[in-house]
Amino acid sequence: MSGKFITLEGGEGCGKSTQVKLLAQALQKLGIEAIATKEPGGTPDGMVLRNLLVTGDKDRFDALTECMLYFADRRIHLTQVVWPALEKNQWIISDRYADSTEAYQYYGYNKRISREILSELYQMAAGNFKPDLTIILDMDPKRGMERSFAKAETQKVKELRFESQALEFHNNLRNGFKEIAMREPERCVIINADKSIEEIHNEIMNIVKERFL
Amino acid sequence: MSGKFITLEGGEGCGKSTQVKLLAQALQKLGIEAIATKEPGGTPDGMVLRNLLVTGDKDRFDALTECMLYFADRRIHLTQVVWPALEKNQWIISDRYADSTEAYQYYGYNKRISREILSELYQMAAGNFKPDLTIILDMDPKRGMERSFAKAETQKVKELRFESQALEFHNNLRNGFKEIAMREPERCVIINADKSIEEIHNEIMNIVKERFL
Repeated sequence: MSGKFITLEGGEGCGKSTQVKLLAQALQKLGIEAIATKEPGGTPDGMVLRNLLVTGDKDRFDALTECMLYFADRRIHLTQVVWPALEKNQWIISDRYADSTEAYQYYGYNKRISREILSELYQMAAGNFKPDLTIILDMDPKRGMERSFAKAETQKVKELRFESQALEFHNNLRNGFKEIAMREPERCVIINADKSIEEIHNEIMNIVKERFL
Repeated sequence: MSGKFITLEGGEGCGKSTQVKLLAQALQKLGIEAIATKEPGGTPDGMVLRNLLVTGDKDRFDALTECMLYFADRRIHLTQVVWPALEKNQWIISDRYADSTEAYQYYGYNKRISREILSELYQMAAGNFKPDLTIILDMDPKRGMERSFAKAETQKVKELRFESQALEFHNNLRNGFKEIAMREPERCVIINADKSIEEIHNEIMNIVKERFL
């Protein structure tokens, strides 16, 4: 069977990273070579960009600079990790991909950049390549932020640049993800992420099995 | 008098950095607030990108990724350094700007990317903004490379990623700079850089005085 590219998307603290790992492990148990990866920072060079993007002051970069950096990281990730894996028929499960850039930099900042620029950058970085499936974990931003700050506290994570944005930003991006899902219902599935880890994992597995197995 | 944006361009080892400093100093002596800066890496965040771009293996990134990173650095440089300085009527003298990206990533790699992508990225990063004057220091690449490696040896500089490209790459980019100058003769002046530091500096000063003083 040919490899698949599955992306998990959602706001801060919605549990994406956990679900990416669980999905990759579950696929491996089914005998599928599945790799868990992430954006930004799915490569060593990308980690340098991630560090610029998710730490420091919220006004460190303008929306356009952020988009250019995210898409540069994306192209490094695609050329060095995603495409080579798909060529070997491996499955790639990515914690975030291009929908996050649209949700955060376009919707989050209230359309401060044009959608045209986003699609130009997408074309440069990825051409016509798209995920086979995108799971959007939906959660009230207030609750997600609480979880994100709690995780930062216990795990000493310093990646809180976007958490410093006002709640309006996070509400905007939540609605952005919903608009993206409505625009591309074949590719995107929204899941209510205010449930137990196991329940969410089971929902994701059911979707993946229905579609591909 | 309003500020000016002057860029110095050219291949490896042509003496740009020295001439940028000398020009800024000479302007300061004339009572002009002039700032010497550079690309990539004219800002602290940009230095992180510079380190990615000019060190390591020559095949570290493909041409497109390089362009995206250079233009991201450019936008950080413009928004944080160049535009704020021009607003205060200061002069900005930059060691490299967008012509280098075109010469290296378009001509150097033998047109592996399209000119359309370059202009899309330019529009994103800079809009319609352009340098008031661009001085291109022209030199036989063989001689420039010798100087660049000698400098690396004595100054322990490790920024040799592009020096590792074959001579053909450097000949291509030299011709690229010439084509850029022919296309925009109002903005660009080519100077033979195989002369003494003082002679080159005097030529540059004469051009600057004629144009702006």
